[in-house]
Amino acid sequence: MTISKGPQAFPRTEYERRLAAVKSEMGKRDIEALIVSDASNITYLTGYTANSGYVPQGLVVSLDEEEPTFILRRQDAPAAIHQTFMQRSKIIGYPEALIGNPDKDGYDAVIDCLSDMGSATRGIGLELRGMSAEAAEKFKARLPNARIVDCTNAVTWIRLVKSDLEISVMREAASISDAAIMRAAEVIRPGVREADAIAEIMGTLVRGANGKPGTTRVPNISLCSSPRTGTPHISWSEDVFRDGSQINLELGGMRHGYCAGIMRTFLIGAPSDRLRRLHEAEIAGLEAALGVVRPGSTCSDVANAFYRVIEKHGFKKDSRCGYAHGIGWLEPTASLKDGDMTELKPNMTFHLMLGNWMDEDFGYVLSETFRVTGSGVEVLTSAPRKLFELS
Amino acid sequence: MTISKGPQAFPRTEYERRLAAVKSEMGKRDIEALIVSDASNITYLTGYTANSGYVPQGLVVSLDEEEPTFILRRQDAPAAIHQTFMQRSKIIGYPEALIGNPDKDGYDAVIDCLSDMGSATRGIGLELRGMSAEAAEKFKARLPNARIVDCTNAVTWIRLVKSDLEISVMREAASISDAAIMRAAEVIRPGVREADAIAEIMGTLVRGANGKPGTTRVPNISLCSSPRTGTPHISWSEDVFRDGSQINLELGGMRHGYCAGIMRTFLIGAPSDRLRRLHEAEIAGLEAALGVVRPGSTCSDVANAFYRVIEKHGFKKDSRCGYAHGIGWLEPTASLKDGDMTELKPNMTFHLMLGNWMDEDFGYVLSETFRVTGSGVEVLTSAPRKLFELS
Repeated sequence: MTISKGPQAFPRTEYERRLAAVKSEMGKRDIEALIVSDASNITYLTGYTANSGYVPQGLVVSLDEEEPTFILRRQDAPAAIHQTFMQRSKIIGYPEALIGNPDKDGYDAVIDCLSDMGSATRGIGLELRGMSAEAAEKFKARLPNARIVDCTNAVTWIRLVKSDLEISVMREAASISDAAIMRAAEVIRPGVREADAIAEIMGTLVRGANGKPGTTRVPNISLCSSPRTGTPHISWSEDVFRDGSQINLELGGMRHGYCAGIMRTFLIGAPSDRLRRLHEAEIAGLEAALGVVRPGSTCSDVANAFYRVIEKHGFKKDSRCGYAHGIGWLEPTASLKDGDMTELKPNMTFHLMLGNWMDEDFGYVLSETFRVTGSGVEVLTSAPRKLFELS
Repeated sequence: MTISKGPQAFPRTEYERRLAAVKSEMGKRDIEALIVSDASNITYLTGYTANSGYVPQGLVVSLDEEEPTFILRRQDAPAAIHQTFMQRSKIIGYPEALIGNPDKDGYDAVIDCLSDMGSATRGIGLELRGMSAEAAEKFKARLPNARIVDCTNAVTWIRLVKSDLEISVMREAASISDAAIMRAAEVIRPGVREADAIAEIMGTLVRGANGKPGTTRVPNISLCSSPRTGTPHISWSEDVFRDGSQINLELGGMRHGYCAGIMRTFLIGAPSDRLRRLHEAEIAGLEAALGVVRPGSTCSDVANAFYRVIEKHGFKKDSRCGYAHGIGWLEPTASLKDGDMTELKPNMTFHLMLGNWMDEDFGYVLSETFRVTGSGVEVLTSAPRKLFELS
């Protein structure tokens, strides 16, 4: 009648370390309770990866309690008991009557729980920027005696510096990413439907690499082929590949919710002079950017190293050069862009995203996932850094 | 240098019909401009399916203009030109300087566009419930002379009744769903890793059926196997299937953003008496529910027909029996639940979702996607309505 704990991706001590960092930040912000509603932050603090975040749910981190309390829809509570490190009494399922109900929803259950914990008159942190206007209003209206503090990205900034255990998991994800790129090089051929190639590439992302399957979430993938190479976010089309087609591929293996993004450009046939020059400029820019990665450099330094080199080659890129990367793809904190003065520290991880969509109908992609080491950089992805010419 | 229009899933007249319905609703609500920010509603009104909604974007429907105006990140504009029915002058790409910028974001570009259109002092509809608190505040602060009206789900309610063209697309999606269920019955075997089965099932969802590939978005899939059958939303685990394992599978084929959900329960070995009785009760309940689907019945009638039958069999289900279904899986409007008095009309489509998570470690799933016809029901999914016993 009760569900067992499943195998855990991380030991309890790892979650204790993460929670200690969050509680220290809560102390600085003078709040006693923090409501975490961002799905990736919930994964980070608990190990939970089920796809239930389309209805309200909240993780309450309290300075008074060692373990956080997770309030979610009753039918999802067994997944939380199974997947997270917490004892079962810390998982509270709210009733179905709160689903599709115009008067009350799951946030009412979170607020009730806060009141039961004696936190309703204290300092309460909310991730306001990601929360709907309606939900934010409800917290304010139903907690009139609380001091509500915007804690958007408070946990997300802590996530930016990974532990060695997290880095291991991201290395596993990166091996899957590499395998999927190599599978793409095998299956992209003239006359093949994009969907048939995607089925194979996605198969590799799910089957994984080195005996470790891709886990727990449907992978991210974009395949933008001629004439769509000037844009980054089309999943795939109903078309077939043709002689002369260029294919821009972005994907990422996933382990326990952690990604490692990679982008490579493929070409059926021989590249144009412009594409080859752009590829050479981007490779040189990538190496220059990686060359300045070390503790003490800033995100801005990394981006500008890239921009300087490709400008020397006669090209420009108008978008940022990447972003903090980990659970759930993009961590909305540090960006590798001009003016972002975030200082690099050991075990920060980034997707160095050098996709360059120059014209409406022409772009090129190249990226790696890296971590900052004690003295420089470790590139986690390792598929050949080339323009894949296929026939 | 310019990108061409891609093949369109629907003719222009179909989008004109949808927009006319939206503009009629805008007239009733006395607003001159509607800002559509929900990704599925944007797909509905334009044909756009790229995955760019993680940064702000907005579709402005104005009573003064035949075509809507789509304001999105510059790098995503070519995808919008390629995928949508609108002329290119209606696609406005905003600059990269608005990405990762603490002071200004893409909603500032949407507001600038509204001002340029002369709408800043008129009635403006927003999908407030899905919009972040920060974004809602920005619209209110930067449009002090506008009358802002909450239009959450205004478009979504219009989507509930499909056209015959949309039904054709959902039939194609349903054929893909059926094929994926049959593929699952082939590949779920003792000793097989869940990830390897998922790779095959997802492969079928992407390759499609009857020569029509799954398109444009990564498919939805959940595989909850013993001991996880008491919960619905785990994607899959790192485990292997074992003799005696029960597997609850939910998935949906996708065509042009439209889904057709289906759930089936699989068992390696012979079912327990309890599981067999529950299966029989659920099948009888499913048939009873489908038996009352016709124009004029309510959502509540359908749900209660199901509840009555399974209670007669000695079971209960505490969650709703389904929801409006179409683009992007769940349409947050009508629910098949007790007390939802939404009246059924021809070409409404629902996911009749009879998943029943009874104990922490025991549940059962069964679902179909149906449409209301002129006199009754058409079930779009057609995989065998059985408990799949595998060996």
